[in-house]
Amino acid sequence: MAESTPRSTSGRRGPYAGTAERRRAILESAFEVFAKVGYRNGSMRDIAQRIGIAHTTLLHHFGSKSDLLAGVLELRDEYGRPGSEEPGVGMLRQLVEVVRRNQETAGLTELYCILSAEATDPGHPAHEYFRGRYTRLVAQLREELERMAAQGELQAGVDPALEAQRITALMDGLQVQWLLDRESMDMAEQLRDYLQRLCVTRI
Amino acid sequence: MAESTPRSTSGRRGPYAGTAERRRAILESAFEVFAKVGYRNGSMRDIAQRIGIAHTTLLHHFGSKSDLLAGVLELRDEYGRPGSEEPGVGMLRQLVEVVRRNQETAGLTELYCILSAEATDPGHPAHEYFRGRYTRLVAQLREELERMAAQGELQAGVDPALEAQRITALMDGLQVQWLLDRESMDMAEQLRDYLQRLCVTRI
Repeated sequence: MAESTPRSTSGRRGPYAGTAERRRAILESAFEVFAKVGYRNGSMRDIAQRIGIAHTTLLHHFGSKSDLLAGVLELRDEYGRPGSEEPGVGMLRQLVEVVRRNQETAGLTELYCILSAEATDPGHPAHEYFRGRYTRLVAQLREELERMAAQGELQAGVDPALEAQRITALMDGLQVQWLLDRESMDMAEQLRDYLQRLCVTRI
Repeated sequence: MAESTPRSTSGRRGPYAGTAERRRAILESAFEVFAKVGYRNGSMRDIAQRIGIAHTTLLHHFGSKSDLLAGVLELRDEYGRPGSEEPGVGMLRQLVEVVRRNQETAGLTELYCILSAEATDPGHPAHEYFRGRYTRLVAQLREELERMAAQGELQAGVDPALEAQRITALMDGLQVQWLLDRESMDMAEQLRDYLQRLCVTRI
């Protein structure tokens, strides 16, 4: 899903390495700009200017703002992804950490919240991205919960399929309330308390 | 919150009665148009034309599209509100019915989903409306859950304050998944199963 970025530090690089690094730099610039001023207000010119490249160079790599958007969302997934893919309770603990990070990058969280909602419209440029993303995330979570259930790590009666949808929904829905009123809750602790109730051992 | 609408059937009415009825007719037209084509694509002209009034007449009652939007959202709350304010398990059952109705009015559900997300931006015209709405809904739900807990209707360990936020979040988050993929779940049954796990008696 995320592009592989060769991290060459030598002076001479092949054309692919240069392209991949430039794409990465553009996405990181777009990431910062969108997180700060939002998708609608973020301009392609600002994103190019921030890293000292021409607007036309940016357009060579990303032909439209919605292409950039898709790339930024993939980058966000990459940042949001836990460093090591821990199984079981460790994976649930990592979800809490993802939410804690979302609390620290409120601009990006707002961007994500708005885009995922707008993308429910089948005509939106990110519709397929979000549809695929949710299908994948829910399936991964369900698989891990099934493994936990088989190993007796979940409370009796917890349904992995329903819980995979619910945990995902809870993370999205809590975001709306938190973004509307930052004082209303600690999202990470809200989620942790919920996940704890599903598990036999301490999260 | 919702305006009071004098339902006079006599030939002569005071100016206020006429105004209230016209506002109501405009809101119902806007409700239909927004639900069908979305907020962004719904035009003030279409809304006026649908009920045979001039565009300028509409502007006399609602000066902007965002004024209309706020009115439509209040009307939606009114429609969504259960006929009788049942207490306890009956109230939870009514939440399931609200979700079932949301499944039957997908266009409006999409509108609500997008608007509530967009309104997390403090500069959005509906920001204060949504902020107030969530504060109110969560507080009402918490109060009812506290009453249920005091009467032994909730399972041990269920925290009314956390659950009021969670149930609200779950309803919002499930909507995103369902709107992206209608085949992914029966939202009403997903919610019912969750609420059932909180309660001692059958929902």
